Amino acid sequence: MLRSLLVALSASLLSIGAAEAAEGMWTLDRLPVEAMQAQYGFKPDTKWTEHAQRSAVRLAGGCSGSFVSPDGLVMTNHHCVRECVAQLSTAERDFVEDGFYAKTGKDEIMCPTIELNRLDRITDVTERVKQATQGLSGAEFSRAQKAERSKIEAECVGSDKARTRCDVVELYHGGVYSLYRYHRYQDARLVFAPEESIAFFGGDPDNFNFPRYDLDLGLLRAYEDGKPAKVKDFFPFSANGAEPGEMTMILGHPGRTNRLLTVAQLDRTRDVDLIPRLLRLSEMRGMLNQYATSSAEAARISKTDRFGVENSLKALGGQLEALLDPAIFALKRQQEAELRAFVAASPERQAAQGAAWDEIAAAQQRYRQFETPYKYIEGSGGFSGDYFRMARMLVRGAAERAKPNGERLREYTDAALPSVTQRLFSSAPIYPELESVMLGYSLTKLRAVLGADDAFVQQVLGRDAPELLAQRLVAGTRLGDPAVRKALWDGGQAAIDASTDPMIALARKVDPAARELRKRYESEVEAVEQKNTEHLARARLDKYGTRVYPDATFTLRLSYGEVKGWDQNGTAVPPFTTIAGAFKRATDHDPFKLPASWIAAQPKLNGEQRFNFVSDNDIIGGNSGSPVINRKAEVVGLVFDGNIRSLGGAFWFDGAHNRAVSVHSGAILETLRKVYGAQRVADEIEAARSKR
Amino acid sequence: MLRSLLVALSASLLSIGAAEAAEGMWTLDRLPVEAMQAQYGFKPDTKWTEHAQRSAVRLAGGCSGSFVSPDGLVMTNHHCVRECVAQLSTAERDFVEDGFYAKTGKDEIMCPTIELNRLDRITDVTERVKQATQGLSGAEFSRAQKAERSKIEAECVGSDKARTRCDVVELYHGGVYSLYRYHRYQDARLVFAPEESIAFFGGDPDNFNFPRYDLDLGLLRAYEDGKPAKVKDFFPFSANGAEPGEMTMILGHPGRTNRLLTVAQLDRTRDVDLIPRLLRLSEMRGMLNQYATSSAEAARISKTDRFGVENSLKALGGQLEALLDPAIFALKRQQEAELRAFVAASPERQAAQGAAWDEIAAAQQRYRQFETPYKYIEGSGGFSGDYFRMARMLVRGAAERAKPNGERLREYTDAALPSVTQRLFSSAPIYPELESVMLGYSLTKLRAVLGADDAFVQQVLGRDAPELLAQRLVAGTRLGDPAVRKALWDGGQAAIDASTDPMIALARKVDPAARELRKRYESEVEAVEQKNTEHLARARLDKYGTRVYPDATFTLRLSYGEVKGWDQNGTAVPPFTTIAGAFKRATDHDPFKLPASWIAAQPKLNGEQRFNFVSDNDIIGGNSGSPVINRKAEVVGLVFDGNIRSLGGAFWFDGAHNRAVSVHSGAILETLRKVYGAQRVADEIEAARSKR
Repeated sequence: MLRSLLVALSASLLSIGAAEAAEGMWTLDRLPVEAMQAQYGFKPDTKWTEHAQRSAVRLAGGCSGSFVSPDGLVMTNHHCVRECVAQLSTAERDFVEDGFYAKTGKDEIMCPTIELNRLDRITDVTERVKQATQGLSGAEFSRAQKAERSKIEAECVGSDKARTRCDVVELYHGGVYSLYRYHRYQDARLVFAPEESIAFFGGDPDNFNFPRYDLDLGLLRAYEDGKPAKVKDFFPFSANGAEPGEMTMILGHPGRTNRLLTVAQLDRTRDVDLIPRLLRLSEMRGMLNQYATSSAEAARISKTDRFGVENSLKALGGQLEALLDPAIFALKRQQEAELRAFVAASPERQAAQGAAWDEIAAAQQRYRQFETPYKYIEGSGGFSGDYFRMARMLVRGAAERAKPNGERLREYTDAALPSVTQRLFSSAPIYPELESVMLGYSLTKLRAVLGADDAFVQQVLGRDAPELLAQRLVAGTRLGDPAVRKALWDGGQAAIDASTDPMIALARKVDPAARELRKRYESEVEAVEQKNTEHLARARLDKYGTRVYPDATFTLRLSYGEVKGWDQNGTAVPPFTTIAGAFKRATDHDPFKLPASWIAAQPKLNGEQRFNFVSDNDIIGGNSGSPVINRKAEVVGLVFDGNIRSLGGAFWFDGAHNRAVSVHSGAILETLRKVYGAQRVADEIEAARSKR
Repeated sequence: MLRSLLVALSASLLSIGAAEAAEGMWTLDRLPVEAMQAQYGFKPDTKWTEHAQRSAVRLAGGCSGSFVSPDGLVMTNHHCVRECVAQLSTAERDFVEDGFYAKTGKDEIMCPTIELNRLDRITDVTERVKQATQGLSGAEFSRAQKAERSKIEAECVGSDKARTRCDVVELYHGGVYSLYRYHRYQDARLVFAPEESIAFFGGDPDNFNFPRYDLDLGLLRAYEDGKPAKVKDFFPFSANGAEPGEMTMILGHPGRTNRLLTVAQLDRTRDVDLIPRLLRLSEMRGMLNQYATSSAEAARISKTDRFGVENSLKALGGQLEALLDPAIFALKRQQEAELRAFVAASPERQAAQGAAWDEIAAAQQRYRQFETPYKYIEGSGGFSGDYFRMARMLVRGAAERAKPNGERLREYTDAALPSVTQRLFSSAPIYPELESVMLGYSLTKLRAVLGADDAFVQQVLGRDAPELLAQRLVAGTRLGDPAVRKALWDGGQAAIDASTDPMIALARKVDPAARELRKRYESEVEAVEQKNTEHLARARLDKYGTRVYPDATFTLRLSYGEVKGWDQNGTAVPPFTTIAGAFKRATDHDPFKLPASWIAAQPKLNGEQRFNFVSDNDIIGGNSGSPVINRKAEVVGLVFDGNIRSLGGAFWFDGAHNRAVSVHSGAILETLRKVYGAQRVADEIEAARSKR
């Protein structure tokens, strides 16, 4: 599933679009309209584009969506709302298992941690940001850039913090800085979610595969002032949904691509990031799946985590496969050599940009020296679980808020605080038993990777056993109570200093070492990469001009293409599946078991109705929940996945095999009406057609 | 821990020894006596060598050992006998936890699955084997070689199958074939094992690290005709044990090195073998560790598996680290280029050997196309657990025994059958609950990797769920009863055909596809590698002459070196630890908790007694349990581990940092007497000094 794996995006890189069929995730202010016209005879005008931009929605947690009615109804994936569905569930009422449908508006329930963003305005702020860092490097570069970005964002948000979100976005890796101004909705309510057994039919075995038969649909509604939000721009459903060969446009928020990392960065990504992460995820999968067998309740409360772990494993596994492919590395080496030769050919360019590759490579070497403590102490590697995460937010939040806005860690700037407090004050349940398992596990890993004799490990564990320490911390903390968290937040530094909560004490103890590593990363690695990839971006723009799109950065993009199957080792994979196919594939056992509602509805259902389909649009994690629209800006489908070959899309685009996988819009209406009796919502969606 | 990871050795490769300090695992018929003389002023003569050869012992399951008394007392590691210790344990008496000591000879209990081998004779059979395959390739090469090897082994064993084991061993990867004739002891009884908490003090965090404080000692006794075996050759303990700078020789059975794989083979090893295996082991670790928390009994019965999984993870992780090191690949590329240039310089050599690298590379590509089904269907990937393993042994054993010896799968030749039946008829317990967990897990993986639509998966699972199928199979099988297994074995093909046991039925169903893959592997990959690495071996012998040692093949080797610490990032690591150090390092929690026996004995113990030490001998997995001896062929220590840098020893020898980790012989005597009151055994060991 294409939920974004990395929402906190530190660095993205300019990407070359050879403007071949379908390649590219384009920002809406620079659409390749000539190429679209040439290939599909369709040239979106400003009105079309602005309408599309305002109809699209971002789920701040890592997904995409779209307005599909004037009353703020938002279409996204089930797997994008499943955390909410799980949070609203209890041991008695399991909406993940049984599905959720709000029969009336009053039955729509607020999701504790979902924030929706609608992109209202893009402003180029490149010059401001670049001026602020001129002549600087290392820690000073990092500090100056952070301060300027925070300042721009604060000015943009102004006093309307609750409804306005502003992000300075790095595009073309520092070639361009854009200010994205969003309308922020923090009151998003759950309207509909099917049973997970059909949302994720085929489960892990079928994930990132095709043919598929998934109703991976979740419906939310944006609220303002306690009432459904009125929106001017939305995408109505087309009458019939996607047709063979139809031109498809996908509006969404691809999370991150790394298509123009240097070879040194790719090496590091493979060896230092992907492999250790996959090993850890594998272990967590084994642990969580086994934990889930211990009781029905354990299965329920661990399901969101298991789901996330399995999805990440498959997605990152596909990335690793691409990075183990010698052909891809050969291509990357060749591209790098070409650009280096271009730079070297001009003494002026050579002086300005020639050292960039080696400086980036040196930063990778430095990173390798402290990446393990960085990931385990500053990252969440050593301290898994919600309790510690909240304890750290409280400890850091107190310290950071006391500083001027421009000097804070980026996740505590004024512009960012509403997202922090939404999570911190949320009523989402925390399960102590699971917390204890996760924290104990991560503390064990902390000791394993840093060694039992490491000073930091000694400081945290003393002569204690990791699992026992975790149990004591979890038993002793009161952070499970949102009121306690709110009091600590509101009490600021004094409250943090005075707290005897053991989890707060742990976060206080860990913080100095963690901040030290963060600083080291930012000045020795990140700042070097940023500064030098700006040079590379310049060189690429000089050499390749504007036939380029920026690497994905979890900002709004359009990709275009068409409904199209592919050739898999000589076998043609057709682009559509049908509802009848789901019944044919079903067994009596999870993950191939259809829900009772479907079995009951089978006689009424149109088996020939198209269910899922593939198109050759260029997408990546974060595009989950994106609408697939036609030239008339009507919904013909709902992206929920890519095929297995799409995973290498993190590093390059393979137009012949890379496919986006979507739910057909016709199947959405068919099943809302005939399986779920959700006439209220289906009527609202169909009525929207005449209201645009 | 250095237990051999790979006992079934298909291919080994000739290795260049630049005859530098300590590098090399030398066969006893070709010791580098001149180099030893030059470096240490010690030149072992034939008598010394033959005595050493006959004092050494191999544990057929993947470890080393040595006779330390004329009454067949065998010294090896705790972790080499821990499977036996666990098998002899019950829910009521846990010898792994509490240790085991046979107060009298009568208390010595037979280990159900341990076989000891003493190497009596080495005969060169190179010409016979090469003649049998002359002019052949692919499947024919493979068949002819197998047949000839089986024939040689059968002739060697003669009628004394119970006591004689003969293996045709490939050395210098096909440069030399040697016939190794062993005296076989299938009655090995447990004499002593300490508590695991001291045998493996520091547990996984300290594994492959140093300083260490482990009494990783297991004592067995070889029996013949129900009485302790009398042996002429054995190693007495030295009076004081290892001294600083002392020359140390290690006699043991390193399992496998791959120091001269081609670059294509190294790529394949990293991408196709190591990474997927590590991912799976990680998941199994998570699963088993979590399973172990479900009850004390679950913890007990899963401990052997957990232990094995964690050890493999660390060992293979170290190998992966080496294969991700660009410097090592650069070295390998350079060595390969040098040898290719040497071959290319002579038209004759070029004609005979020039194509070898490319043919080997092509075989790696072919392997990549079917490695997944090969590992999951013919390997144990899809069908974990003892029940299935035994079912397959029974199904295959019936079919294979019906064939002429030379046409059988190698593991069912007459020479190999005693090892098969020892495991098959063993009284070692099988735990249905754990079997169900493991089989369910592996069937789930089978479906995940081959896909739910795969024909083989459909054939095995039908519309069933993997876990449920596993539960039914485990509940339904009667293979847990050794008598049932024996009846099926003795009943031959008719009994197998008639069996309604569900596990036998599964093994029957799986066998055709599995055999097909095996055949494909042997003819398309293995035979190509064998044939072509013979050419490479020839080229290396021509270029480098006899300053070479063969890659490890789980056959007896000698490595020499000295007691010596190393420099770790500028810090000197001293070579010794002491018993007092263990008490200093101890906490109240596993894996740093000392057993009660040690706490009680502390006042009596000599804290200054050297406990563990490192030496720069070249060793690898399989060397576990090897004696460390001095020039007088006296035991000064007991190898049980290597440091973390020794793991890259699979691919190259890093003399500066690679260290063997051993228990000091003095600590063995000190603790046998003062902690365990094991005077009977300590006396026997010390008395041996005067009986040599």
